[in-house]
Amino acid sequence: MDQSALDVPLQEAISDPLSAAVTLYVCVTCRAGEASETEPRPGRRLHDALVDAQRRHDMPPSFRIVGVECLSNCDHGCSAALTGPGRWSYIYGDLGEASVDDLLAGASRYAATADGLVPWRERPMIFRKGVIARIPPSSPPV
Amino acid sequence: MDQSALDVPLQEAISDPLSAAVTLYVCVTCRAGEASETEPRPGRRLHDALVDAQRRHDMPPSFRIVGVECLSNCDHGCSAALTGPGRWSYIYGDLGEASVDDLLAGASRYAATADGLVPWRERPMIFRKGVIARIPPSSPPV
Repeated sequence: MDQSALDVPLQEAISDPLSAAVTLYVCVTCRAGEASETEPRPGRRLHDALVDAQRRHDMPPSFRIVGVECLSNCDHGCSAALTGPGRWSYIYGDLGEASVDDLLAGASRYAATADGLVPWRERPMIFRKGVIARIPPSSPPV
Repeated sequence: MDQSALDVPLQEAISDPLSAAVTLYVCVTCRAGEASETEPRPGRRLHDALVDAQRRHDMPPSFRIVGVECLSNCDHGCSAALTGPGRWSYIYGDLGEASVDDLLAGASRYAATADGLVPWRERPMIFRKGVIARIPPSSPPV
């Protein structure tokens, strides 16, 4: 894990409507390249591990975790996406249950921004290496 | 990835709020795998070709075309992304000037939906084959 990701406190801004609207979408149908059908699927296991880890934190979460069926990134699953109103959206690939802590830390940093742009050096390594693409806000500020 | 291009403001602003609802973002810094520096870059040429083609249409456009610096999809450039409030966002890769007509047709169909989900058979082939990823709306209905 990227050491810089370890000391990121979860934000307490659940009462802030902007940060509360940040969502970490996790593809729950992803097989992560596994040929055989296993239940639960790797994507579902990643989702559940994220939810469990978020619950273990004492602070109210600054983002929600939502399972979704297919992020169309099947060649690089497991996949997750970060998005929020007025923010750049990011999609990450090649994730697994070992990514849980970094994903939560990175999503917290993302939720603490107004535009979704976390300074490069503050991003967990999986966010630097695993980015599949990013999309500007649907209605950027003028 | 072009690090110098990250975290820069969008190049163009919203004009008409109606047509601003749906945006086709085009990465204008993309080199499309070309080792040598050519000007204008392939991404800029794609952007300009799209704008020119849209202008030739008689009808008012149902979406705007906005150039952006880096969509972090450098391994599959040229790249473009479709997004709009309340809609699923899509990012497409491996595009070129030959993709212009299909991109405009696909973006029009996308703009005609409320949620960004165009029926599979109505999608241009480049939208079926060239999708890199998709991201749910930032604030989906609860």
